[in-house]
Amino acid sequence: MKQINNITIIGLGLLGGSMGLALKKRLNLTIYGIDNNPKHIEKALQLGLIDQKSSFDNIQQSDVVIIAVPVNKIPEVTLKVLNVITENTLVFDVGSTKHNLCKTIESHPKRGNFVAAHPIAGTEFSGPEAAFDSLFENKKNIVCNASETHPSILEKALTLFKIIGLQTDFMESESHDKHIAYVSHLSHISSFMLGKTVMQIEKDEQSIFNMAGSGFESTVRLAKSSPETWTPIFLENKTNISIALGEYIRNLQAFKMMIDNEQKNEVYKMMKETNHIKDILKS
Amino acid sequence: MKQINNITIIGLGLLGGSMGLALKKRLNLTIYGIDNNPKHIEKALQLGLIDQKSSFDNIQQSDVVIIAVPVNKIPEVTLKVLNVITENTLVFDVGSTKHNLCKTIESHPKRGNFVAAHPIAGTEFSGPEAAFDSLFENKKNIVCNASETHPSILEKALTLFKIIGLQTDFMESESHDKHIAYVSHLSHISSFMLGKTVMQIEKDEQSIFNMAGSGFESTVRLAKSSPETWTPIFLENKTNISIALGEYIRNLQAFKMMIDNEQKNEVYKMMKETNHIKDILKS
Repeated sequence: MKQINNITIIGLGLLGGSMGLALKKRLNLTIYGIDNNPKHIEKALQLGLIDQKSSFDNIQQSDVVIIAVPVNKIPEVTLKVLNVITENTLVFDVGSTKHNLCKTIESHPKRGNFVAAHPIAGTEFSGPEAAFDSLFENKKNIVCNASETHPSILEKALTLFKIIGLQTDFMESESHDKHIAYVSHLSHISSFMLGKTVMQIEKDEQSIFNMAGSGFESTVRLAKSSPETWTPIFLENKTNISIALGEYIRNLQAFKMMIDNEQKNEVYKMMKETNHIKDILKS
Repeated sequence: MKQINNITIIGLGLLGGSMGLALKKRLNLTIYGIDNNPKHIEKALQLGLIDQKSSFDNIQQSDVVIIAVPVNKIPEVTLKVLNVITENTLVFDVGSTKHNLCKTIESHPKRGNFVAAHPIAGTEFSGPEAAFDSLFENKKNIVCNASETHPSILEKALTLFKIIGLQTDFMESESHDKHIAYVSHLSHISSFMLGKTVMQIEKDEQSIFNMAGSGFESTVRLAKSSPETWTPIFLENKTNISIALGEYIRNLQAFKMMIDNEQKNEVYKMMKETNHIKDILKS
């Protein structure tokens, strides 16, 4: 791809590391890596996620800067990067929350160089060892507040996203955070609490293991996710998550009441209606 | 397998149908099928799940009778079958709840011919079309109150289970129903309520679809399950499920409070502890 010779990735976990692999596989360029954790740098070099270690002092020379640190660090890192880049540099992040970030940088003179992106891709694993080059293939990507990005910078970003397999849609950051609270963050919390509840009662771990094939194993999968990644996400999006969790709890209480009262028809009807999720998830 | 020439399966859905396919693939025998729904019979014949249609009048001639009807029908169907079988017939069910069933039949003169089984196998799909011959391969199976079955009948059952790939463990029926309420039934309810909550808020179905890859799709999978199968299970095991649901709701409320109060360390700690589920689920 013309104009792109080198890329700096800040944060070499699952997403940052996979970005490195995905880009190197498809484009002829040099990937520089920055991470607070020296072990992540070492591992990223070893696994070929990046070509060279770098630092904030060298960011100026990058054609593209990718910010893949935990969401609570993204605003400050983004400001730090925007302060030093040249006018043609594309900067984008890959975080799960977008509104606070977009607010923080909205009046920065280099706002136009930034693309607020959220690739809907991930696994329950984390760290550089979890990275793989096909993570973004055929996945959705949400770009927020695209009108605040320079058209030429946006175009460059969209081309890069497409190359690694992402299909991009557009949303406003406030709306993104509200929707993602329900569709993604609530799923993680429901799964963590399911894991916690089952482990509290089932001191006999063999029973969990023996019975896990009955739906538990897949429903609890997200409870394996990294607390380092998810604590900041839950706190960053706390207002939306609190509302979503409140609704979820109310629905559970209503369903518990139906079961306690043996309201067979209501229990049936609720499940029948919820089966509609099948149609929604069909591509 | 000696002594087994024909098997009757009552209830030709996912489990009954898959039993037919799994057995026919591995043994040379004739499978008879019974189902209230004439369309299920027709489909089961068409798909080769069974060899011939049968009726309760012919059950006496069966070497093995498998009961795979919804759990609320299992006790009455089991009594009906036990009333007519000969002394060498093996009868087993495949239902998700066991205590009420075992209580109902405990003093029946043919109790020794019966094995209360729960193969921990299934998918979110249902009906004869959902059946497949490898459903039970490398899956766990729980047999309840095994001491109430004649040793020779139990041995025959264990051999059959092994042939189709099931690894059998033993439990008392009361304990089974309590454990399965947490590990399986609660997972289904958490998933149904997640689907309901997200659909309530997300009138914009495109957002659900676009963001589903973020953990929602796998966590909500069980909300595609059949209300015909699950309504009776939830009501049959209502006491245990109500306790499990109460605990789950309390944990969600406590977590919501932590998020509302921005108790970062508590949120982190709770997730870190729950990550232990990784070790439990490792084989």
